[in-house]
Amino acid sequence: MLEDKNPQRTAITELGEFGLIDHLTQNIKLYHKTSIKGIGDDAAIISGTSENQKVITTDLLVEGVHFDLSYMPLKHLGYKAVIVNLSDVYAMNATATQITVSIAVSNRFPVEALEELYEGIKTACNIYQVDLVGGDTTSSTSGLVISITALGEARSEEIVQRNGAKENDLLVMTGDIGAAYLGLQVLEREKQVFKANPNAQPDLEPYSYLVERQLKPEARKDIIALLKELKVIPTAMIDISDGLSSEILHLTKQSNVGCHIYEDKIPLDPQVIATCEEFNMDSTTIALSGGEDYELLFTVAMEDFPKIKGNPNLSVIGHITKESEGVHLITRANTKIPIIAKGWNSFKDSE
Amino acid sequence: MLEDKNPQRTAITELGEFGLIDHLTQNIKLYHKTSIKGIGDDAAIISGTSENQKVITTDLLVEGVHFDLSYMPLKHLGYKAVIVNLSDVYAMNATATQITVSIAVSNRFPVEALEELYEGIKTACNIYQVDLVGGDTTSSTSGLVISITALGEARSEEIVQRNGAKENDLLVMTGDIGAAYLGLQVLEREKQVFKANPNAQPDLEPYSYLVERQLKPEARKDIIALLKELKVIPTAMIDISDGLSSEILHLTKQSNVGCHIYEDKIPLDPQVIATCEEFNMDSTTIALSGGEDYELLFTVAMEDFPKIKGNPNLSVIGHITKESEGVHLITRANTKIPIIAKGWNSFKDSE
Repeated sequence: MLEDKNPQRTAITELGEFGLIDHLTQNIKLYHKTSIKGIGDDAAIISGTSENQKVITTDLLVEGVHFDLSYMPLKHLGYKAVIVNLSDVYAMNATATQITVSIAVSNRFPVEALEELYEGIKTACNIYQVDLVGGDTTSSTSGLVISITALGEARSEEIVQRNGAKENDLLVMTGDIGAAYLGLQVLEREKQVFKANPNAQPDLEPYSYLVERQLKPEARKDIIALLKELKVIPTAMIDISDGLSSEILHLTKQSNVGCHIYEDKIPLDPQVIATCEEFNMDSTTIALSGGEDYELLFTVAMEDFPKIKGNPNLSVIGHITKESEGVHLITRANTKIPIIAKGWNSFKDSE
Repeated sequence: MLEDKNPQRTAITELGEFGLIDHLTQNIKLYHKTSIKGIGDDAAIISGTSENQKVITTDLLVEGVHFDLSYMPLKHLGYKAVIVNLSDVYAMNATATQITVSIAVSNRFPVEALEELYEGIKTACNIYQVDLVGGDTTSSTSGLVISITALGEARSEEIVQRNGAKENDLLVMTGDIGAAYLGLQVLEREKQVFKANPNAQPDLEPYSYLVERQLKPEARKDIIALLKELKVIPTAMIDISDGLSSEILHLTKQSNVGCHIYEDKIPLDPQVIATCEEFNMDSTTIALSGGEDYELLFTVAMEDFPKIKGNPNLSVIGHITKESEGVHLITRANTKIPIIAKGWNSFKDSE
């Protein structure tokens, strides 16, 4: 959009609220036979079975708090807004099936901007095979607000909550961590450079993975399939949205357990290590406190270790202890440091 | 709250995001056995049956667009935000069962303000027996935004959509209409008077019904029970949130039918008639275009007329015709006026 010198700008008021919804949601594909009726009535209709339970989760993204449109293209934003919610569904070990999307937007956005946003939303729906079944579009007095609710389903015995971790269980995480947070730092730095000199050409190449993790994160649908294939049902699971330390504390608190995590086991991408050196940051701190990686953190019983051992998607980073032992990081130097929550908190960060 | 000269003000940052959610959602009662797990995990868990289908609906309320905190107490706002969504569930002829609540709020609101808001939300949940099972609380750069998603359920053969109206069906509405819109006009006028003279004492007594309809609307859960009792399943149904004319047009368009509605049959409260006279407004225009009454509009087959006849909750206001006959108001003078949408549109009104 930045390159088009004469972009088409259709005022939202030309379409009106209902015209806008019709326009944005045309050609929506429905993948699930449980989606009986999608957009177009007072509510969507979804069928169920007595074996399957539904899970429901919701997230609200606010301009200026969760995203900055100066470096977040609207299409990416739409995609990410869906991913954030699907990640919560997968964290229940469930299949994501339907979403509703509500958007508040000021008149400064033309219809074409909302089309971009919806392009991202629909792309995520197509890739993750979830059905967009409803929503609300309204005006806003200031910035853009996106509220998404996601539904998922699973057999009741497959659903994994946060509270089932047991002493001696292994603590496992998917993928690697810290990259999304560093991607944000890189983008913020480029924004400052651009402000000072609008002719500066950013070279984001050395940070490509970091920037992609920040702007176009993925949810670990593949892990839910992998766990099924490996016949592993985690004892507890949570997605890593606010930072590893914060999620570990949620999981251990709700399970009434403690844990040890090992600094040298935390999976980091080489770009994370290199960029931490460049920015003079401690990579373990970034891994523990940086958010938005949307990896999964889960615990499995010791006897499941052979099933997950050596899998390139999964890293055993620690083990569960008695609650009385507390939650600690065991450093490379073999010292024991209590883990405290330093995850992202929208209220604190916006002070 | 306005009367308390030294209200307690706890900064949201003192509690943090998770502390805030815990604080606001403590002592939540769950009424439905389908609510397997409420707040406290990545997602809520809801059971289903193969006979029952779920309905899902969502609404976004934005400060300065949908509400004005200068005359809308936060407790009422919380209550109304729930009602708006339940009304959509009832419009499907379904029972409302669960809601999720997401709130974006700036740091100018103390925790006590959010407690007020949640008091209203919980009161609505208790009165309507719906379970608050999840949500998100985040900061906002400017005003208050509330996004609620509601789930409901019904046997599949009981669910009523907008698209089933047939020629010769009767068009029926519940309660009376126009009061909520006039309530808003009264409150706006008082706000202007108060601005000009802060010592002026408003006398809202002659407008008590109007103001209550605006500030504390109810959703017609009772009508869903009544229809069941009368063994009437409407052929089509919609809730009247944006204005009667707008809803009639939705229903007829989706059913591919036309309709005649009779001016003298539209139910108006005496306060609506008196206030229209005082404000020099046409009461039929207000009835057709004013929004937020949250009554239900539905169609029933002619043979069901004896079951609904004379019921004080229900008014037959017209009948369905062939699509080619169009959608018309038949006035008291027996002239035929085409109905055009003049319902409330957040984009147009905020221009």
